Amino acid sequence: MGILEVTQRDAVTHLTMNSPERLNALSDEMLAALQETLDQLADDPTCRVIIISGQGKAFCAGHDLRQMQAMRQNEDAGASAFADLFARCTKVMMRIQSMPQPVIAQIHGIATAAGCQLVATCDMVVAAEGTRFGVNGVNIGLFCSTPMVALSRNIAPKKAFEMLTTGDFIDATRAEELGLVNRVVAPEALATETAALADQIATKLSAAVRIGKRAFYEQLSMDTAAAYAYTGDVMVENLRLSETDEGMQAFIEKRAPDWDQ
Amino acid sequence: MGILEVTQRDAVTHLTMNSPERLNALSDEMLAALQETLDQLADDPTCRVIIISGQGKAFCAGHDLRQMQAMRQNEDAGASAFADLFARCTKVMMRIQSMPQPVIAQIHGIATAAGCQLVATCDMVVAAEGTRFGVNGVNIGLFCSTPMVALSRNIAPKKAFEMLTTGDFIDATRAEELGLVNRVVAPEALATETAALADQIATKLSAAVRIGKRAFYEQLSMDTAAAYAYTGDVMVENLRLSETDEGMQAFIEKRAPDWDQ
Amino acid sequence: MGILEVTQRDAVTHLTMNSPERLNALSDEMLAALQETLDQLADDPTCRVIIISGQGKAFCAGHDLRQMQAMRQNEDAGASAFADLFARCTKVMMRIQSMPQPVIAQIHGIATAAGCQLVATCDMVVAAEGTRFGVNGVNIGLFCSTPMVALSRNIAPKKAFEMLTTGDFIDATRAEELGLVNRVVAPEALATETAALADQIATKLSAAVRIGKRAFYEQLSMDTAAAYAYTGDVMVENLRLSETDEGMQAFIEKRAPDWDQ
Repeated sequence: MGILEVTQRDAVTHLTMNSPERLNALSDEMLAALQETLDQLADDPTCRVIIISGQGKAFCAGHDLRQMQAMRQNEDAGASAFADLFARCTKVMMRIQSMPQPVIAQIHGIATAAGCQLVATCDMVVAAEGTRFGVNGVNIGLFCSTPMVALSRNIAPKKAFEMLTTGDFIDATRAEELGLVNRVVAPEALATETAALADQIATKLSAAVRIGKRAFYEQLSMDTAAAYAYTGDVMVENLRLSETDEGMQAFIEKRAPDWDQ
Repeated sequence: MGILEVTQRDAVTHLTMNSPERLNALSDEMLAALQETLDQLADDPTCRVIIISGQGKAFCAGHDLRQMQAMRQNEDAGASAFADLFARCTKVMMRIQSMPQPVIAQIHGIATAAGCQLVATCDMVVAAEGTRFGVNGVNIGLFCSTPMVALSRNIAPKKAFEMLTTGDFIDATRAEELGLVNRVVAPEALATETAALADQIATKLSAAVRIGKRAFYEQLSMDTAAAYAYTGDVMVENLRLSETDEGMQAFIEKRAPDWDQ
Repeated sequence: MGILEVTQRDAVTHLTMNSPERLNALSDEMLAALQETLDQLADDPTCRVIIISGQGKAFCAGHDLRQMQAMRQNEDAGASAFADLFARCTKVMMRIQSMPQPVIAQIHGIATAAGCQLVATCDMVVAAEGTRFGVNGVNIGLFCSTPMVALSRNIAPKKAFEMLTTGDFIDATRAEELGLVNRVVAPEALATETAALADQIATKLSAAVRIGKRAFYEQLSMDTAAAYAYTGDVMVENLRLSETDEGMQAFIEKRAPDWDQ
């Protein structure tokens, strides 16, 4: 059992970060395992939804500070190694959003710094009651500038600024109100509720979900006119699918679509 | 009585979609009627606020799937007709935001797919309790990519992503919390509450509201410095109005402005 | 005691607008005092957090209408003076966000028009229960186009549009829900709660907070890939600080950092 457990259950792939003694830190090994696994899954037609969770008492506590401190022994005091670390971490984050499959974070315990970034980066988040979220690097003198990119694209600026400069934690209920979390569930229901959400999406036409996820992030940064021009083309592409023809026809005829995917 | 009823009540123009047997679908005829009517109203100085509502049990259920399926009989399997449909629909949506008058959606029943897009596109929304909102095209294999443009500019990304990929509905109260709706009212008060909001805005200086609405959408996509440079000019333009001079002077003198508009 | 009181309490600088008889209007004098004081504080290493509050019954009621009306006597009916006024006001607003120190608005009474813009511009906001917020220029025929820039970057578009076109006020609790305010406190606790928030941030490593605040606004308007490239560099810059090295090492060794700032 490696640092990242990969298990397939029907069309849903579970990625479980398995480094509980380090609170599933995004170490060199964890980042490499996530990158490699996600790259493989991107080409796997049997995988329709991905769930990322963590073993032990925390979902993810951010970067591995021991590894980072060791980098300071390099000739350049770590500068190039640090730059490389953030490039690799960014690549994983961007990969999550460029995956053809929806990626759901299944969260418990704590999600801090780059762990909170990972949460903010996933397409959807199901959190156990009591989960605590923080971008608390400021407490040790390292402002969470990269986690901020994901956080500030999900919650209101003044709320993000407060979390970043105070280092204060928020709980799951508050995170849901702010827009960082989709659903808050009882801890004992976390796995089943997340699986139910994944299963629900896995029953949808996979090709349509893939088209839609790609379009979601593409259009988000465009101005409105450009976003409409782009998504108009996306709709036409989607309509070309024979399964979509069948889905629309079935709806008109008030029957279930005959899809074999 | 056509597919779009147009009634004027003082300075407020009511557009009522009147195709209840098709749940006020955005058919070729409905889109054409909306475009033509809005284009005319844009030049009508007696119209200061517009309300869009729907006859029957739904506000609007999105595109007309029967018409779309018929397009598949064309030589190109519908590709050019589909592209034209989304271009026409986009033109109506962009027209709503480029109208000089504020446009209020008065919602009840359901607003789904392009119907939910229409809601998200209007400047303000008053919804009856119990109204349900969905971008549920994914259920028939047609991801709501164009509705997504309007939706994702109004609610937090994770909430939008969930609606788009699950096809789940949200109710009016939830829609208000997420930012899609301004006010939720009892069904029996829907018409009067919406009219009251429209009347309130109709009492404002029309020229100032027009200047402000245009500036609202123009500045929204600019970076902050550019937005300030632009709106600074807008303020100077607004200040040139003799009625604004009178409004400011009246405020200083603690009296009502003497406006004849 | 001038129009802007400046008092230092440890590392926190209090700016108190002191023109209560004009509801702390952003007059020529007030704007000049804010600009000059902020410019000086930007270079003051002993100032780590700034609090802006107002004397009297209002935080700030926006521009000084009497001064503006007097500008109409100019040869050009005020056009160039108005343009200059908005340029000066914008410069103060942009200065607040470009300050190296976090700026907290401590709000009570009312914050209207450019006063509401000032609130929306500060990095964080603590408001007394009962505070009322409005962008109500529309009531006198002057749409709040410049305040809109700050407001619409903090709350959902439909909520901003409603406030701008109706002129309606919202209270502090509502403003917090919408994202305009961080914390709502009892009026008698306003000063102490705001000071506690400022003090908490003042205990953080000042250099890290400065790096982070600058990065916060820089990255906000970038697309995600550009924002990550930029903040990756910011992280490397932050990691070069010897205090950050000490902060990280102290965390690993489960002790308090030995910072002398």
